[in-house]
Amino acid sequence: MADPIQLVPGNSLITPTAEEGRQLAIKMARLIIKATQPDAAVREKLRSIYAQDATMLVLIGQTVATEFATIAAANSYWKK
Amino acid sequence: MADPIQLVPGNSLITPTAEEGRQLAIKMARLIIKATQPDAAVREKLRSIYAQDATMLVLIGQTVATEFATIAAANSYWKK
Amino acid sequence: MADPIQLVPGNSLITPTAEEGRQLAIKMARLIIKATQPDAAVREKLRSIYAQDATMLVLIGQTVATEFATIAAANSYWKK
Amino acid sequence: MADPIQLVPGNSLITPTAEEGRQLAIKMARLIIKATQPDAAVREKLRSIYAQDATMLVLIGQTVATEFATIAAANSYWKK
Amino acid sequence: MADPIQLVPGNSLITPTAEEGRQLAIKMARLIIKATQPDAAVREKLRSIYAQDATMLVLIGQTVATEFATIAAANSYWKK
Amino acid sequence: MADPIQLVPGNSLITPTAEEGRQLAIKMARLIIKATQPDAAVREKLRSIYAQDATMLVLIGQTVATEFATIAAANSYWKK
Repeated sequence: MADPIQLVPGNSLITPTAEEGRQLAIKMARLIIKATQPDAAVREKLRSIYAQDATMLVLIGQTVATEFATIAAANSYWKK
Repeated sequence: MADPIQLVPGNSLITPTAEEGRQLAIKMARLIIKATQPDAAVREKLRSIYAQDATMLVLIGQTVATEFATIAAANSYWKK
Repeated sequence: MADPIQLVPGNSLITPTAEEGRQLAIKMARLIIKATQPDAAVREKLRSIYAQDATMLVLIGQTVATEFATIAAANSYWKK
Repeated sequence: MADPIQLVPGNSLITPTAEEGRQLAIKMARLIIKATQPDAAVREKLRSIYAQDATMLVLIGQTVATEFATIAAANSYWKK
Repeated sequence: MADPIQLVPGNSLITPTAEEGRQLAIKMARLIIKATQPDAAVREKLRSIYAQDATMLVLIGQTVATEFATIAAANSYWKK
Repeated sequence: MADPIQLVPGNSLITPTAEEGRQLAIKMARLIIKATQPDAAVREKLRSIYAQDATMLVLIGQTVATEFATIAAANSYWKK
């Protein structure tokens, strides 16, 4: 249903820096929500719930941490 | 009970790209729900709950992130 | 208390295919529930709750994803 | 406070089989609960809650899955 | 929206010690919350909720544990 | 705010035994809670909630399991 949404920006987990890896983790987490709820108006309404609710914020942090673990491993932790 | 449902499309974790790996993660997460609740009418009713509920959307994101970690490792993170 | 229940069918994490690995993940997740609640009648009652409740279905999906990560690593992701 | 409780039976993660690894995962998960709530009477009361509540059973399953992932890696997945 | 916030202090996961790795895990977990809710006044209000609520404290601990797992792996566990 | 709290006792993840690794996991999980809520009186009040509440006990178990996974890997699972 949500197939046209691009789920991995740039179709790659590789980023030049840890900072950009972290940004990618946030984007990938958001794109799963977009794929599950493609209606932008509904998402906008839910976004204000996320941002005002302590539990939501912490659960989003948990998801980003999990995505970032994968991205960091893909980049060998950006070690030189 | 849900044995006839195919749980891993193509019976393989290997995908050509990260994008397709992400699509597989979403499909595999959905197929577990299908195996646990094989009644399509019940699932359809629950799907509208998922898509409208902020907590549900975030929890689904967490599950997809976990599935994707496995798929990404299986594909050596699609590094050339 | 639940010692007589077999927790790992076949006492092995190795499966011929990813599909069978996924089936094993579902079985292992269910057997922990069986070990924690050995009374079949209570489990039967709870099963209908699982299958009708959106949060339950997603949380079960998360557990299966975690079990599957271990099984997939045990099988070197079924890569030839 | 809970220091006298033994947290890792046998003080080792190594088990002869996957089945025994799974049993160890259950025991280790229970021993953390024991260390956090050393009063056996309170634990007994809570145990009946665990076993009757669908969410509790699934969350316990998630914890056992996480403990098992560590034990399985410690045993190199019991591969010969 | 939150792009100007620095998500990884120092743009590196590498720290001299485990203690500093743990501090980085806390900071990275907080910065995701900051990126999701950039309004400092709202965050301040939510912070008092986090700190007074048992569930919140435990969920934050779970997120920090996940971030720390990545940082610890990046630093090869600070083994000499 | 909580910077003076030591987050990793001994500033090392290395322990002689699995048992001590498990004790370290419990301590590290508690120290994150201490860093998030530095007021000892509030923590004391919340501690009685943790210990009496089934969900709390299970969630604490999940966090300890995650911390332990990192510590166990750092110690190569205490294999000789």
